[in-house]
Amino acid sequence: MPGFTYRHRVRFVDTDASGRIHYTAMMRFFEAAEFEFFRSIGLPYQNIEKRAEAYPRVHVEADYLGAIHYDDLVDVAVHLAKVGEKSYTLQFDVTRAGEPVGKGKIVVACMDKATGKSRPLPEDLARKLREHAGASGS
Amino acid sequence: MPGFTYRHRVRFVDTDASGRIHYTAMMRFFEAAEFEFFRSIGLPYQNIEKRAEAYPRVHVEADYLGAIHYDDLVDVAVHLAKVGEKSYTLQFDVTRAGEPVGKGKIVVACMDKATGKSRPLPEDLARKLREHAGASGS
Amino acid sequence: MPGFTYRHRVRFVDTDASGRIHYTAMMRFFEAAEFEFFRSIGLPYQNIEKRAEAYPRVHVEADYLGAIHYDDLVDVAVHLAKVGEKSYTLQFDVTRAGEPVGKGKIVVACMDKATGKSRPLPEDLARKLREHAGASGS
Amino acid sequence: MPGFTYRHRVRFVDTDASGRIHYTAMMRFFEAAEFEFFRSIGLPYQNIEKRAEAYPRVHVEADYLGAIHYDDLVDVAVHLAKVGEKSYTLQFDVTRAGEPVGKGKIVVACMDKATGKSRPLPEDLARKLREHAGASGS
Repeated sequence: MPGFTYRHRVRFVDTDASGRIHYTAMMRFFEAAEFEFFRSIGLPYQNIEKRAEAYPRVHVEADYLGAIHYDDLVDVAVHLAKVGEKSYTLQFDVTRAGEPVGKGKIVVACMDKATGKSRPLPEDLARKLREHAGASGS
Repeated sequence: MPGFTYRHRVRFVDTDASGRIHYTAMMRFFEAAEFEFFRSIGLPYQNIEKRAEAYPRVHVEADYLGAIHYDDLVDVAVHLAKVGEKSYTLQFDVTRAGEPVGKGKIVVACMDKATGKSRPLPEDLARKLREHAGASGS
Repeated sequence: MPGFTYRHRVRFVDTDASGRIHYTAMMRFFEAAEFEFFRSIGLPYQNIEKRAEAYPRVHVEADYLGAIHYDDLVDVAVHLAKVGEKSYTLQFDVTRAGEPVGKGKIVVACMDKATGKSRPLPEDLARKLREHAGASGS
Repeated sequence: MPGFTYRHRVRFVDTDASGRIHYTAMMRFFEAAEFEFFRSIGLPYQNIEKRAEAYPRVHVEADYLGAIHYDDLVDVAVHLAKVGEKSYTLQFDVTRAGEPVGKGKIVVACMDKATGKSRPLPEDLARKLREHAGASGS
């Protein structure tokens, strides 16, 4: 299971007065990892966005497993946990020096831009995603 | 079930290039609603923070049920969904003009600041929270 | 000089590990105050955005005059400091309980959406802005 | 004038409904560049923060010279524009593929943590900063 990992340096803006990261910071880590993962499999986000469909996220969740401080280097592993008919699910596992500090997932739906309704993933995208869902071992 | 509702005007900074809110914006709405809910039951957040315990959030999740745009007025209803021995769970229901546009929950743990380990909620806090868990009908 | 004032409750997300607000938070206070100021003079931002012109900000500056902490109530006074031919300048003065804690200004240009070039403010907008530049005593 | 440059990939969270970056995003680019600049000259930020002094920013300004979109790669050049007795000024020049798209500066003051008053920069820090102000050609 090689998978894809994105490394992020935690910034001061990621923290709050608790001295640790604000809980929204984890979502930004996920987002950067997601985009770089898609780039790594030949799907830069611009291409996705230029389609007739939009890809809004419809669900997100995160678990905070350890205190993360600014200047920490965190590694965000990304896996395609599920490729459904009308959505796909990305799983994130965040470690610092190998120790788990967070995890989460995002469900992204395929939506027809004209109608605003969900619709099946385009076949070429679905195929590519399924291929990498396999490759990442999920 | 009277509950507590916080009204937020969506700002430009809450949006992204999709033309809708960025998914982290929902978490900021939750946070503002959470703090005002606590204030409404006589627990301003400063008091919580001055204790020997810290209250990190250990889990968060959100569902995005409709497109939210800037300048929208959203109402965030807050309920104490669960008061456990070492944590409590807040439930959020977000509407715009009565129509559901999002929901979510946050699990907040009680942590001993000195040891960094989870610990039981202080009895006075647990009692007050349980009282309002009842009042909000959850 | 009556002017317009927007009140903001400082949120946890506005802070960083210094225990005070992050420097970008001030810009969010400015933005909310700006939008509410425009609404107060009958120019809700949607109307501005639906025009053939866009209104990008081309300059921003801020001075931090005192430590601002979460849960503080800050008042952001807004003045139209200047209405030029192709831009206007908003001035912000931030106080907490009457004590200055910050100030700043933003220069907003008028841009033709089709060409991406700056252009004169539409006459009706310029007239309305000049009127309120006067009213706020700037 | 070699200077120091930090490269940032613009993220979706950096954008707003205008389709370009939100004006606060530029400040986050500055911050990341600042921290990496300090690291590059042997002054990781933790070391600064562990001192008896704090280093709040007291002034910030930015000019937006061109539209920046998500997934753009921007290069943020950092120079120590001035090292004063009680503060220092960092200058930022942001380019994309060599074309200027933004610039700005930040004034950071030295503050005694105990009194909250400004105080002279510690001699060792001032010396190191002056050395690099020279090296970066400012």
